Amino acid sequence: MEIKEIIEKIVSDKKDVGGIKQVYYAACGGSYGAFYPAKTFLETEATEIKVGLYNSNEFVHNTPRAFGENSVLVVASHKGNTPETVKAAEIGKKAGVPVIALTWITDSPIAEHADYVVKYTFGEGKDIAGEKTIKALLTAVEILNQTEGYTHYDTFMDGVAKIDHIVKNACKHVEKRALTFAKNHKDDKVIYTMGSGAGFGAAYMESICIFMEMQWINSASIHSGEFFHGPFEITDAEIPFVLQISEGSTRALDERALRFLNRYAKRVEILDAKDLGLSTIDSSVVDYFNHSLFNNVYPVYNQALAIEREHPLTTRRYMWKVEY
Amino acid sequence: MEIKEIIEKIVSDKKDVGGIKQVYYAACGGSYGAFYPAKTFLETEATEIKVGLYNSNEFVHNTPRAFGENSVLVVASHKGNTPETVKAAEIGKKAGVPVIALTWITDSPIAEHADYVVKYTFGEGKDIAGEKTIKALLTAVEILNQTEGYTHYDTFMDGVAKIDHIVKNACKHVEKRALTFAKNHKDDKVIYTMGSGAGFGAAYMESICIFMEMQWINSASIHSGEFFHGPFEITDAEIPFVLQISEGSTRALDERALRFLNRYAKRVEILDAKDLGLSTIDSSVVDYFNHSLFNNVYPVYNQALAIEREHPLTTRRYMWKVEY
Repeated sequence: MEIKEIIEKIVSDKKDVGGIKQVYYAACGGSYGAFYPAKTFLETEATEIKVGLYNSNEFVHNTPRAFGENSVLVVASHKGNTPETVKAAEIGKKAGVPVIALTWITDSPIAEHADYVVKYTFGEGKDIAGEKTIKALLTAVEILNQTEGYTHYDTFMDGVAKIDHIVKNACKHVEKRALTFAKNHKDDKVIYTMGSGAGFGAAYMESICIFMEMQWINSASIHSGEFFHGPFEITDAEIPFVLQISEGSTRALDERALRFLNRYAKRVEILDAKDLGLSTIDSSVVDYFNHSLFNNVYPVYNQALAIEREHPLTTRRYMWKVEY
Repeated sequence: MEIKEIIEKIVSDKKDVGGIKQVYYAACGGSYGAFYPAKTFLETEATEIKVGLYNSNEFVHNTPRAFGENSVLVVASHKGNTPETVKAAEIGKKAGVPVIALTWITDSPIAEHADYVVKYTFGEGKDIAGEKTIKALLTAVEILNQTEGYTHYDTFMDGVAKIDHIVKNACKHVEKRALTFAKNHKDDKVIYTMGSGAGFGAAYMESICIFMEMQWINSASIHSGEFFHGPFEITDAEIPFVLQISEGSTRALDERALRFLNRYAKRVEILDAKDLGLSTIDSSVVDYFNHSLFNNVYPVYNQALAIEREHPLTTRRYMWKVEY
């Protein structure tokens, strides 16, 4: 079932009880980050629909009071077996809330507790428009369009049609830069990421899933607007930053951070969405595509960094190895 | 005007246009962090009211479409002169949205663009119940109680009555530990904070306002539920953590992080809300008081750390010194 049809079914099922009033996204780590654009979309574009983005275990222990007959729950788990996310789906199913599960492996535990299972694309050469991030965004876009209405629906879909091509070009575009970055950062003990708007989740993911998890490098994702209210005091000639310059409404925030870093920092890697071709997507919807761009350009850097550091991206000391 | 009366006035003013449907909190840095419990309160307890927490500059550039006749805007600026927050208030005022400004200095630029100015307590010996965090929470509690209704209103107010005494005892309780912490951490290049639930904002503030801003120590605030999905791979015997063990619904998440750290880390400072006396507040509302507890216990550590490191908390290299 396509996401459009799934939402049509849910909207129809909820007609008699007052419709969809709350949409909850629950996931962990990288999947949590992938939900960030969907959450931001409904936060920004919806007038009445409440939206919440939760770490799955937070959702399980601190389930919002509104969760019930007017809710939709969207969960994501890459292999469909993240225990906290499976539990969140189970809570949804038991409460009679429609549960949409996004996963790469549809024959997995999460499917038992989901009303609708959506498989996303993953791996080498994947279609970016079919990825978890876009699938999640589509749940948000369809819900809004089929309830309150969404003026830019067709323009958004045009963006979806364009994103794969943009991302693949961008990945080629950064290949050389990524090698240089890897050489220059192979001995770093800390690397910060920075971003704003709907693309901030990509900075979060790079920070927690790559630098911390896969490379054991200390990191934090800093919001470019928050940077000037605390974090910027750690800036010096040595501390490295990866700065996402987004396209769309919050670009000014990222550019301001860049102006500061250009004066007081020396080691700044810039991912500029404009330079990377995102501007061919209409400005009314471009905000929501920054994540897919940045999140898919990072792996070019990550591969190079892992090789240069002789620390494969698959190396773990706790995950898959110990009980926790 | 008391917050209760302010909200009564706004609810009455909005009667003819359909009432309050969206509540937005906008602030920067420490004030952003102080809004975290209020945002979490409405996210968790409200059924229909939408809530958003924004960095002020993000709000200015990416104002949600719903912002208008059914909205309330709450801003906070310590000295009332944070440019991005003043701008957010200005946007609110121009849009005819009631603006509540929380500040320590009421005779300040923010007052020009606010319909209601609320002074909060600050400094040595301050009444914790009069602080920014609680004032912000009260805007959320009053809005909910005066619209959808809030079952635990009286119990919440009982918590407000108790928090000052709890915090002041807790601060005495950690004095010796804080000195030991300072000695043990004076040479650290990175210190992580961790927490969950409505108290997470206190971890964020300690990380960005103290470690990064005031001590130039690298830091990130990690959600205890997210810890196991990436960040925990940086754990080793050397990396220091400050872990908030909250009271209330997400305590299990923090305790899980503690069990892991007890096995694989060696340098963990525990702030346990139960041990610090928070449990005298009723379990139905205790979640929302974790922030005030942790946020006020940290300064005991911060003072000790600043002295031990011979790096005063007032030292800056950029803030107040250069243009940005």
